[in-house]
Amino acid sequence: MDVLSYMQSLGQAARDASRAMAKASTNKKNHALLAIAQTIEAQRQAIIAANAKDMVAAQKNGLDAALLDRLELNDERIDAMIEGLQQVAALTDPVGEITGLKYLPSGIQVGQMRVPLGVIGIIYESRPNVTIEAASLCLKSGNAAILRGGSEAIEANRVLADCIRSGLASANLPASAVQVVDTTDRAAVGALITMPEFVDVIVPRGGKGLIERISKEAKVPVIKHLDGVCHVYLDEFADKTKAINITINAKTHRNGTCNTLETLLVHEKVAVEFLPELSTALLDLGVELRGCKATQAILSKVKPATEEDWFEEYLGPILAIKIVKNLDEAIAHINHYGSHHTDSIISENYSLSRRFLTEVDSSSVMINASTRFADGFEYGLGAEIGISTDKIHARGPVGLEGLTSQKYVVLGNGEVRK
Amino acid sequence: MDVLSYMQSLGQAARDASRAMAKASTNKKNHALLAIAQTIEAQRQAIIAANAKDMVAAQKNGLDAALLDRLELNDERIDAMIEGLQQVAALTDPVGEITGLKYLPSGIQVGQMRVPLGVIGIIYESRPNVTIEAASLCLKSGNAAILRGGSEAIEANRVLADCIRSGLASANLPASAVQVVDTTDRAAVGALITMPEFVDVIVPRGGKGLIERISKEAKVPVIKHLDGVCHVYLDEFADKTKAINITINAKTHRNGTCNTLETLLVHEKVAVEFLPELSTALLDLGVELRGCKATQAILSKVKPATEEDWFEEYLGPILAIKIVKNLDEAIAHINHYGSHHTDSIISENYSLSRRFLTEVDSSSVMINASTRFADGFEYGLGAEIGISTDKIHARGPVGLEGLTSQKYVVLGNGEVRK
Repeated sequence: MDVLSYMQSLGQAARDASRAMAKASTNKKNHALLAIAQTIEAQRQAIIAANAKDMVAAQKNGLDAALLDRLELNDERIDAMIEGLQQVAALTDPVGEITGLKYLPSGIQVGQMRVPLGVIGIIYESRPNVTIEAASLCLKSGNAAILRGGSEAIEANRVLADCIRSGLASANLPASAVQVVDTTDRAAVGALITMPEFVDVIVPRGGKGLIERISKEAKVPVIKHLDGVCHVYLDEFADKTKAINITINAKTHRNGTCNTLETLLVHEKVAVEFLPELSTALLDLGVELRGCKATQAILSKVKPATEEDWFEEYLGPILAIKIVKNLDEAIAHINHYGSHHTDSIISENYSLSRRFLTEVDSSSVMINASTRFADGFEYGLGAEIGISTDKIHARGPVGLEGLTSQKYVVLGNGEVRK
Repeated sequence: MDVLSYMQSLGQAARDASRAMAKASTNKKNHALLAIAQTIEAQRQAIIAANAKDMVAAQKNGLDAALLDRLELNDERIDAMIEGLQQVAALTDPVGEITGLKYLPSGIQVGQMRVPLGVIGIIYESRPNVTIEAASLCLKSGNAAILRGGSEAIEANRVLADCIRSGLASANLPASAVQVVDTTDRAAVGALITMPEFVDVIVPRGGKGLIERISKEAKVPVIKHLDGVCHVYLDEFADKTKAINITINAKTHRNGTCNTLETLLVHEKVAVEFLPELSTALLDLGVELRGCKATQAILSKVKPATEEDWFEEYLGPILAIKIVKNLDEAIAHINHYGSHHTDSIISENYSLSRRFLTEVDSSSVMINASTRFADGFEYGLGAEIGISTDKIHARGPVGLEGLTSQKYVVLGNGEVRK
């Protein structure tokens, strides 16, 4: 069978399975999740052995250390998969919730019911644990899923696919509710993102290059996350302790995450007071500083920032610093140079922080909190399939609810339209 | 200036205006809406004169009677525009509403704020009143809009664009918050739907051909409405009076609307009791009936239905009738042949109607009500930019809320991530 026919057969099977999944009871879905967890526990050695084959091949192919680390499965990571499945089983089922039922003058009662999206295609790179994360979220939200992992993880993904099938069977749910694409042919991705008759939405997880390519070529809606160029703005009325603690946490708590601080904006009235102490702390932590002219006038150990720096997602220990003359300039900078991901103002002033909250056009806008909080778990969603920087459907961390939609329900008593 | 540069200049102006619109107060937006209404009242003769030019040109170009009717503006339709503006001004402003603010274990408080989408591109055909409808909804929801009306309505749309600009100016809002594309060059549409840097979402309003073409070529999310192949299912436990009244209303209240009934499904146990009386009433009202074999065995004045009939949106006085053996067959038929628009079960049985509500995968699912109720005004949305048959973002009638999204807001007190 050629790749296109193969993908279409997966698509048709997923579409059929999505009908059964949409009406599957909460109990059945939880049963499947817990059964998958048990199977993974039972197959722990087989999973690790399959992953070892992937690792050998990857080393032979010269994958770099960071990729090898993401690819590796060990006991700890398998424990995390099992816990993840148990956590998703414990979450409230979003499907079927009816909200806003109201009587209207015609006599009908209108509300909205939360329903699965249908079939979700997930495209990801090396990490095989994403197979279980994505499967569990799609399953709990009543969707069918087609998972396309990285070719370098194919051996582990095959064993994980078996575990998922076994869990689905144990709950009497269709095996094709979660299908793992079993080919490393790149044409599979092209097919998956251009089958609107079988796939309702695509969630790509990976580097910016992958996501841009998919968004460009997809004929299906994409819930996507591009850059995280996040800002902290130290306002004229910032509390100095909060300003320093939050800046350090946002920049150094973890490098390379999308909610890590990249550009610090500082009100000119507090720059002289805050920057020296802050820069010492950051330099001690190994952060390279790049500043605007005004910053360079205050700090000695700062390199000049270029126009490109304001657009940059460093994903590493570098911080750009710009001194601004007021809130308007800060907001304009964020909306122009930022990526609409996560931005935080540090201020004790009610009116200024309220304006920041309203006028910054980002998926997460914060007052006196670290940008590192932009995360499905920290927001209480219980799980996260990704962080959306899109404007329609879902913005910010996407949990179970982001994998659902709402249909209108109308309860009548024989009403007709006049 | 070539068309592409022209459209990009509109796009850039819209993007800039969207920042001002996002933070415009409710009062300012309402002021603009009412000022536009006043200007239209003052320019009534100029609007009718411009429309007369469009009508003459359209007649010369041989447009058919239905299109000419949609193109025409008269005093009554101008009154309706003015009332529409006043109604939208009276609606609650959706922008800025914060919901679900909850404290989390880390100490931060997380909720969601409703925000405009940004820049909305609307592409529509002959009806010039859509210019005012679309402008008013985008304006009230804090978005900037680029409106591309039919080339046959260009004269009237130019005068209406002047009225909108004047109203915006009177409220001190940017003139480019609502821009009407002032060229009949078809390349303008191609440009509008492929500028993700300037346009956040496209709403096409028109025939299926237009919408399919736009969806296929767009590089921007599209909120779209394709067919309305709507069903009424007369269940075994249907009340006969409700069944007959609702079927007649759903089919004959208005031909050619997307929420009009196209296929009637009847449980085999009530077919002999219901169909003769129902068919007499429908035939008296001029409805042509096409039935499955079993229907033909009961009714004499029914033509045979072919496989194509079950997929058909007749947009006219034709009804397809199929007898089914149970709810499962009815639901399977609707999910397979329908267009996921609006479907209604007529039943007094709790468990069967509850299953129908859950398992039918349509944007509006009803119990004992006419499909004709699927409408933004009937649902209490106060206005409607269209009915979405998409699954993501918005399903069913789309009002002001469908033109907005939600961003996360985080209120902290200096919290950092552990």
